[in-house]
Order: sequence, then C-alpha cells, then structure tokens
Amino acid sequence: MTHHDPAASFLLGLAAILLAAKLGGELFERFRQPAVLGELVAGVLIGNLDYLTGWGLFSGLRTDPFIDIFSRIGVIALLFDVGLETQVGEMMKVGLSSLLVAVAGVIAPMILGFAVGQMLLPQAPWSVHLFLGATLAATSVGITARVLKDLGRLKDRESQIILGAAVIDDVLGLIVLAVVSAMVTTGDVTAGSVARIVVVSALFLAAAVLLGDRVVRGLAEPLSRMRVRGMKLITALSFCFGMAWLADLAGLAPIVGAFAAGLVLSEASFARFADQRPLQQMLEPVTTLFVPVFFVLMGIQVRLETFRDPGVFVLGAALTAAAILGKQVCSLAAVGKGLDRLSIGIGMIPRGEVGLIFAGIGRGLGVLDDAMFAAILMMVVVTTFITPIALQRSMSRRRAS
Amino acid sequence: MTHHDPAASFLLGLAAILLAAKLGGELFERFRQPAVLGELVAGVLIGNLDYLTGWGLFSGLRTDPFIDIFSRIGVIALLFDVGLETQVGEMMKVGLSSLLVAVAGVIAPMILGFAVGQMLLPQAPWSVHLFLGATLAATSVGITARVLKDLGRLKDRESQIILGAAVIDDVLGLIVLAVVSAMVTTGDVTAGSVARIVVVSALFLAAAVLLGDRVVRGLAEPLSRMRVRGMKLITALSFCFGMAWLADLAGLAPIVGAFAAGLVLSEASFARFADQRPLQQMLEPVTTLFVPVFFVLMGIQVRLETFRDPGVFVLGAALTAAAILGKQVCSLAAVGKGLDRLSIGIGMIPRGEVGLIFAGIGRGLGVLDDAMFAAILMMVVVTTFITPIALQRSMSRRRAS
Repeated sequence: MTHHDPAASFLLGLAAILLAAKLGGELFERFRQPAVLGELVAGVLIGNLDYLTGWGLFSGLRTDPFIDIFSRIGVIALLFDVGLETQVGEMMKVGLSSLLVAVAGVIAPMILGFAVGQMLLPQAPWSVHLFLGATLAATSVGITARVLKDLGRLKDRESQIILGAAVIDDVLGLIVLAVVSAMVTTGDVTAGSVARIVVVSALFLAAAVLLGDRVVRGLAEPLSRMRVRGMKLITALSFCFGMAWLADLAGLAPIVGAFAAGLVLSEASFARFADQRPLQQMLEPVTTLFVPVFFVLMGIQVRLETFRDPGVFVLGAALTAAAILGKQVCSLAAVGKGLDRLSIGIGMIPRGEVGLIFAGIGRGLGVLDDAMFAAILMMVVVTTFITPIALQRSMSRRRAS
Repeated sequence: MTHHDPAASFLLGLAAILLAAKLGGELFERFRQPAVLGELVAGVLIGNLDYLTGWGLFSGLRTDPFIDIFSRIGVIALLFDVGLETQVGEMMKVGLSSLLVAVAGVIAPMILGFAVGQMLLPQAPWSVHLFLGATLAATSVGITARVLKDLGRLKDRESQIILGAAVIDDVLGLIVLAVVSAMVTTGDVTAGSVARIVVVSALFLAAAVLLGDRVVRGLAEPLSRMRVRGMKLITALSFCFGMAWLADLAGLAPIVGAFAAGLVLSEASFARFADQRPLQQMLEPVTTLFVPVFFVLMGIQVRLETFRDPGVFVLGAALTAAAILGKQVCSLAAVGKGLDRLSIGIGMIPRGEVGLIFAGIGRGLGVLDDAMFAAILMMVVVTTFITPIALQRSMSRRRAS
C-alpha cells in the first residue's frame, strides 16, 4: 500500500484533457473550423470512450471536482480575457442595439420553448413548460466570443452588439431563472423579490463600468509601488477573482463579474507598474492552461446513449429549432443600417454552460426528469456545435461581399 | 434561493492568498530578505488571524481541497522550473568536492536530526525520528545562490562547490524522501525494501537524464508540427504532469518526476516548434499563480498556539542546531587546500522550500503532528534567515584577510 499524491492522477487527467483539446483543435483548424469545436468533439470522444469501448479509462473525469473547478476557472478566465479586449466606449455605441437584441432574445425563445412544451408534453404541468422556455432564454457568450476571437473579428460592430447583448442576456437570463425557480418552488412570486434581482443586476454592471476605473486606479496605485515579481498579473487576476465573487454574491453568474473586471481594466490601469509587459501576454499561459478544460468538459458531459429514446430526440429537435428561431427573431431588434443581422442572430444561438446550469437547476428542483434533461442537453449541444460553423460561414460570406 | 458557483468562494480565497503572498514578499525584500520568507510569514498571519482575532475569516483555507490541489500543483511547477534551470553538464563538472560535500551534507544532518528526535521525543515511533532527520537532509539552493549572486561571488571555488553540492543534494534528498516515505507508509524497514526504493529512485532519475532527451525529441516532433496556439506550453506541462504521475506510480513523490522532467527539457527540445518564445517565460505566469499558494499554505498550516508548549520551541531550537551543525560537518568533506570551509558550511545551511516540502509530505502522511510541523517550520525559517547575514559576513571576512 503505497501513498499516492491526489495531484498525480488529477494532473494525468488534466494532461490528457489538454492534449486532447489541442489535437482536436489542430484537426479542426486544418479543416478551417474553429479550434473550439475540435475541443468540444475531443470532449465528446473522451466522455463516450468508456461507453463505446467499455474501458473505463476516463469515467472519473466527468465528476472529478478538480476538473470541474478548473473548468469553472477556465470560463471565468475566458470572459476576463474577452472583457479585456472589449472597449466600453465601443460597447456603449451599440448599447441600444444590444439591449433590444437581448430583451427580444429572452422573450422570443421563452415563448417558443413554452409552446414546444405544451405541444409535445401536454400532460406535464405548466412549471415544466415554463422551465423549458427558461432554458432557451440564456445566451452563452463563451463560445461565440471564442469564435469571434479566433476569427479576429472581436472589433466588428456586429460582434460588439452580440457581446453586449450576451452580457445583458446573462443578467436577464438569471432574473428569469430566479423568478421561474421561485414560482416553481413557492407557487408564487412577489414583486419585491423580482424587483430586488433586477435592481442588483443592473447596479452591479453599471457600478463596474462607471466606478470601476476610479476604484482600479485607487487599488493599483499602492500595488504598483511594489517591486516583487509577478505583481501585475496577481493584481489583475485578484481583481478578476474578486469581481467574480462579488457577482456571485449579488446572485449573478461569476462570469458576469469576470467580464466586468476585464471591461474595467486596460493597460492604462497598469501604467505605473514597473513590469511593462502587456497584461494579455502574461495572461495567455493562464488561459492556455484553464480554458480548454471548460470546452472539453462540456463535450465530456454529453452521453451519447441517452439519445436511443426517439422521444428524447424529437423533444430535443423541437427545442433546438425553437432556440435557433427565437434568437433569429431577436436580431431584427438591432438598430442600425447595413447590419449583418444573420450573423447577430447566429452569434446569439449557443446556450452552452448557461443552458446546462439552468437544466441542472431544473433537474435539482425535480421539475425536469431525465428525458427532459437529455433533450435540453441535446439542444445545448447542437446550438453550441452549429454556432462556430454557421458564424464562420456567415461572417466570411459578409466579408467576401 | 440563489444558485452559488463553487468557484466563486474558492477564487476569493485564492486572491487573498496571492495578494498576501505578494505583500509579504515585498516587505521582506525591502529588508533584503528572501521573498519566500515573506510568503511564509503571510501564511502564518492568515492562518492565525482567526486564532488571534476570533473572526473566522480564513479558517476554511486550511482544509480547502481546491487550495490544497493548487498548492500541490505549485510545488510540482516549482520543481519543474528548478529542473529547467539545472544543467546536467554543469552538475557533472563540479566534481568530487561537490559530491562529497553533498553526501556528507545529507548523512550528518540526518543522523543529528534522528538523534534529536530520540532524545526529545523518546516515546514517538522511529518513523518520526526518521522523518525529522530527513527534513534536515535537504539544502535549498535558491537562497544561497541569490546571496552569492548579490555578493558577486558566484565564480569563487567555494561558490561552485556549494552550488554543485546543493544540486546533488536535491537529487539525494529526493531519494531520501522516497525511501523514508515508503518505509513510513509500508512499515517495511527491510534492507531489501530500502535497496529497492534507492534503485527505483536512482533508475528513474538516471533513465530520465539518459533516455529523456531522446524520448522528448520523439514526442515533441509530431507535436511541433501542430500550429494551434499554446502547443509549446501544453507539450511541456503535459510532459511535466506525465512524469509527476509516473514518479507517483513508481512510489516516488510527484516532485521527483517534475524535477526530472525539468532536467530533461531544454530550449533545444522545442527547437522545431513554431513558437520561439522561451519556455521559462511562458511558464512564469503559471508559477506566479500556483507557487505562492504552496508557501502561503505552509504558513497557514502553522498553528501559533502550538508554541505555547515550550517543548515545541525546544524541539525547534534543537533541530535548528542540528541543521547548522550537520552542514558545518559536511564542509570538512570538501577536497582542496586553502578552502574557506566556514563559508561552504554556511552556504549549505538553508533548508528553505525543500525542507518545507519534506515537512508537508510528512504531515500529509500523518507522521508529523502539528507540534512537530511547527518545530520544523521554525528550523526552516531560522536557517533561511541566518544564511544571508552569516554568509555575507563570512565571505567579507575572508576577502578582508
């Protein structure tokens, strides 16, 4: 009986995930597809290898708490990085479009999802239909942001509208989730609790954008006098982590805080630091280590065997159609001439981790059964998978014209 | 009912640890002391804030499994980095004196440490005495190298002997650690089992050094053809993680594998990669994020209330005396006339992070209790503190005469 270090087996699994992510990414880039899709496919392969082969090699990864936390840090680091690349001024220019797209992008899919539930599951209670609609409301900005970054199109007006709308969508989605959860669990919802969530969410982002720069400069000033190594990266990461925690405390997703932290920080925030290397250059090894874990784990969560039941497949297909159609409707709400509305609509399609979180909570509340959960998972996976391909085609078509 | 992300509270704790580490490091560097001591002291303060104030702010960090895994990854990343900086060729050149000093510098303190254990803790099992001796065996090259560099004496014959011996000491120390850990966990003290571990450890390191370069070039060749971002860092980290796992599989500490991985890899291993940025530059943000967690957590593990027991203080003082005396003995083993043996002996004194790693493993194995851990930490801190001052005086005296 030898003593084994818990880090050893975790690091082997991490190395396998990172190498699989890079191999998948490489393969897809060779076929001119975004690397992120390759990371998802690598995850699906890893996650179902045991089911297909019976080896039991990777079965532990799906529920490993350390892989899970690495994945959560990955999506937080990704949104921080995306926030750093997003200029608040640019986002304000498209603020109205983003707001309108986000509001339409929550309402339209919710109505469609509710309708799908009533048609295909007529005997299920209204709470199920409501929850199915709610899972369609959220947009997962991570995948779209990654695709836009891979394509080098983050500065486009359409990209700014999508990113702004996705952030507002996160806030709206969490309000919807909180309200729906309250209605399902208590059978009632007070106007006060809804108002509180709305106010907290709006205040959080407004405060980050309006006060953030002043607070950061105040915090960074004493830290910039320190000459010990690594001060700049630690200051930036601590700010990101602190904002993620604050968002969570406010009842929002931590990624909202991480994105806000990235929005607020810029190279100007670090002007007084002795270390003059760009922050994003220092951040790159950190995102390289954490971000692929998120995308591979999303793939790993997909159980291919659940789709043996044709009913699951039909419900999943209907939800997928509602998800895609609902977000296409929302692109019509964007304000401006000559906008690539198709790309905006496509960019809003992926439900990703937000849809997964919703489905998980619905399942935890006992509202959604295994079949509904599998169907939602299918919707999440399909919308996540088609976005990189569709967005790339749509944006290249636009550039070519 | 709000949904809370488990990453949020973890990241807040991580940010607190990283900021505390940097503040402590900065303070100690201002007083011309090694930053690592500042990180330890910051950890002691954080860990005992609850005890001193009764606030209960950081009590969770001591047992947080995620902080623990970050700390383990930190020490693995540190040893990988140290291995990368160690040139096998240079190690071979320093010759007989370094080897003799290193061997004597492992044996003498081990015997003295074992004796201290038997005298002061007569009722404790032999495994405790053995582990106390083992923690005295290692030399931390980082602090001495930094002092010699600051004094501009790196090219002195004494400095070369010290640095060579410290590197060999690292390897010998890892073998001692492997043997002691295995003896403690299996309870097996037969000559056969000891011989088996010595052979496995020696073979592991020898195989890594002799075959490693060829294996790495074979593995790196196909990976170097991949053009996806982050390939170089992922290849290096995966190799490090894989070697750490292999070491663990062989019954050794994962850090032995990480050190071997660092020894084997060099910039030449990555000559064919498109990314020409130095590996250590890319690794720096990763070590910046993980390594301080190890040192701060070590400090957090120290419970100041254990020092209420005068026995802990006496044990710490006796271990410190054994640590200093043991390394003075080893300087007698150096070959050559007119050598400044006092400076050699002083240069070998600091136990630094290596002693901490040993103590941490002993604690993890359940061999060392809180009181012994605190006494060892006292020894590590005192030996690390006195070295810069003593070495500076000893070397100036020599130059003056």
